[in-house]
Amino acid sequence: MIEDVNAYMRGLGEAARAAGRELAATESGPRNAALRAIAERIRGARETLKTANAKDIAAGEAAGLDAALLDRLALTDARIEAMAEGLEQIAALPDPVGAVTDLSPMPSGIRVGRMRVPLGVIGIIYESRPNVTADAAGLCLKSGNACLLRGGSEALHSNQAIAECIIEGLVEAGLPRTAVQVVATTDRAAVGSLITMDDYVDVLVPRGGKGLIERIMQEATVPMIKHLDGICHCYVDAAADLEMAERVVVNAKTQRYGTCNTLETLLLDGDIAEELLPRLKARFDEFGVELRGCERSCALVAGLTPATDADWDTEYLAPILSVRVVDGIDAAMAHIARHSSGHTEAIVTNHHANAERFLREVDSSSVMVNASTRFADGFEYGLGAEIGISTDKLHARGPVGLEGLTTQKYIVLGEGHIRE
Amino acid sequence: MIEDVNAYMRGLGEAARAAGRELAATESGPRNAALRAIAERIRGARETLKTANAKDIAAGEAAGLDAALLDRLALTDARIEAMAEGLEQIAALPDPVGAVTDLSPMPSGIRVGRMRVPLGVIGIIYESRPNVTADAAGLCLKSGNACLLRGGSEALHSNQAIAECIIEGLVEAGLPRTAVQVVATTDRAAVGSLITMDDYVDVLVPRGGKGLIERIMQEATVPMIKHLDGICHCYVDAAADLEMAERVVVNAKTQRYGTCNTLETLLLDGDIAEELLPRLKARFDEFGVELRGCERSCALVAGLTPATDADWDTEYLAPILSVRVVDGIDAAMAHIARHSSGHTEAIVTNHHANAERFLREVDSSSVMVNASTRFADGFEYGLGAEIGISTDKLHARGPVGLEGLTTQKYIVLGEGHIRE
Repeated sequence: MIEDVNAYMRGLGEAARAAGRELAATESGPRNAALRAIAERIRGARETLKTANAKDIAAGEAAGLDAALLDRLALTDARIEAMAEGLEQIAALPDPVGAVTDLSPMPSGIRVGRMRVPLGVIGIIYESRPNVTADAAGLCLKSGNACLLRGGSEALHSNQAIAECIIEGLVEAGLPRTAVQVVATTDRAAVGSLITMDDYVDVLVPRGGKGLIERIMQEATVPMIKHLDGICHCYVDAAADLEMAERVVVNAKTQRYGTCNTLETLLLDGDIAEELLPRLKARFDEFGVELRGCERSCALVAGLTPATDADWDTEYLAPILSVRVVDGIDAAMAHIARHSSGHTEAIVTNHHANAERFLREVDSSSVMVNASTRFADGFEYGLGAEIGISTDKLHARGPVGLEGLTTQKYIVLGEGHIRE
Repeated sequence: MIEDVNAYMRGLGEAARAAGRELAATESGPRNAALRAIAERIRGARETLKTANAKDIAAGEAAGLDAALLDRLALTDARIEAMAEGLEQIAALPDPVGAVTDLSPMPSGIRVGRMRVPLGVIGIIYESRPNVTADAAGLCLKSGNACLLRGGSEALHSNQAIAECIIEGLVEAGLPRTAVQVVATTDRAAVGSLITMDDYVDVLVPRGGKGLIERIMQEATVPMIKHLDGICHCYVDAAADLEMAERVVVNAKTQRYGTCNTLETLLLDGDIAEELLPRLKARFDEFGVELRGCERSCALVAGLTPATDADWDTEYLAPILSVRVVDGIDAAMAHIARHSSGHTEAIVTNHHANAERFLREVDSSSVMVNASTRFADGFEYGLGAEIGISTDKLHARGPVGLEGLTTQKYIVLGEGHIRE
């Protein structure tokens, strides 16, 4: 039992800061060796991990957690192997730190460039999935950052068991054992400390529900890279290929329902709505997707639920799609500007100027032409890994890979230059 | 008199958001035309500006403002011309928005790239100098951002008069008149609204004292790009050229005392301190700079003030320099890690490996080898303009030019691609 949670957290922070400094001075070799050693420890600890996880599952069942949550919590052989493989994949990626770019001579004679370096200490707050412990630790370690991991209380035993593997791997590779620290208390005050230790923590990456993120926005003094909602739109322009539109829209909604890049609102140009909407209705009926339509949509095809104002601002994460008929690209972009969460929007069109306007003017982290919103993903974008998708505009926007966990500092090379 | 400050500020925010959307869709031409038109209006309004400024000066004198503050507040003919020229220089810089980089095909067939775009709406909070109104408006406009400017209450009339010129220039160039809005109340509650309107404001740039920035850290829900302190260090290594060290150290301290990139703490390697410190003491005596030394420094040369613990954490902004003798680069970097504000640090050395270690391991926004810390400046770094110097690690670090006022979004080009 930890009595003074704030003192405990500050102790972790101080150790993380020191470890971060040490990590920042390492070459790729020891960091990759640690990642591979941790993967091996996780494979070797399979039974230990499952035993620890069984305690969490039993406690979860006793507490009446729902089936979906219990499923996310469970560590199976396949999931344990996937954690180990994920770490090996991270080890195989290029080192994101150390590159010096744009080193150029200035009129004064000094040379100025930028060096990519780790952020320092990253605080990650997440919920039930214990595999996040290994994933997040791996991404931070690869990018030369120390991290403080605060997982869900329901996964405490699983996370602690994974932490043991991580520490063993770090020590084996000669890296500081406090480079990755898993918070060992479920006391909510630990979060309050973590988000205000701006002297020890450089950035927060919350991976959880809206309530958590709103709490951090209100209370944190540490900056964060966050993802709020994914209310994604697709606008089918008058000049769209309707076969393509059907294929893209159905994929964007139905390929997975619960992901943040899933389509939630469909905007149809008035010129093609009469032809396209009945076809889409038939396809969505096959998938059991409920369509909630504006007045014009409901007048065009039978069987739509009338949409309410709230529908345009709802991330369903479910087989429901809101549909609105609009007159032209300006009306579509005005709807998006008002209702989008800034995650991902797509246009289906063969009209070049409309495609260009949509790309330029829509203010979201990903803007697409003739492609499914489901592509908004670090792996699909070639980042090789992803710590999350940011709907912020500062620092990292859209899928955040290893580069998002680094920053750049200016370097100046002189030969005794002084400012006149 | 504005009765409901929060409603007033939200009204400004809504108008700024709309103007920001319009600006983001503009080409360079109208933005540059507006900058030049504003410059002309400022030149033409010279007498009006001086009359408005005289009211602020009179009120400031009546309120007992000190001479330095009154000097910063004054608008002279030369300062008015400098504002106009500054806007013309910004107009002549390359457009920071619109570039698409790294557009590459992915295994799925989509092409993914990044487009540089404005941040949206920028809130700037600043103090007495009225020229910041024109400078900040110019940088935001150039980078396609709307802005909300909250100047110091002592400069209210001057800022309002400058705002008139800005609005006339915007209208002349056909841009929305709410692209730049100067808050017309000195009520401190306006700041409280501005820093929590995260639906209307994308980023805050506070340009003021530590009290202001600490208030924003505690209360803001809008992210900010900030500059806290400039406690800059120079470490003279055992392998330094002592002539060069003397030149660099004296310049870094004495070229200007009140700037954030001025040297505040000098670290001398024990091997060269005995030779170098008396020479530096003689030079600094000529400038009237007080040296506050550690025990070893005080033992090496007479006339030093003994430093207290507080000296190592003080930004003097005055002719005072703290001096500490350390044993080697590790001790120097440990001192810096503990006491630096992360602004700018320099090493003077001819030892290649030490230069490389210092560049890599020192965690500050600018790290220099054999150059004066006074070079840490947007103009010296070739940025062409500067909104400030950031000691943050997220987004913009070091001198922040036009690029720091933009972000990148992902763009995805497909031909009807769906995710399998």
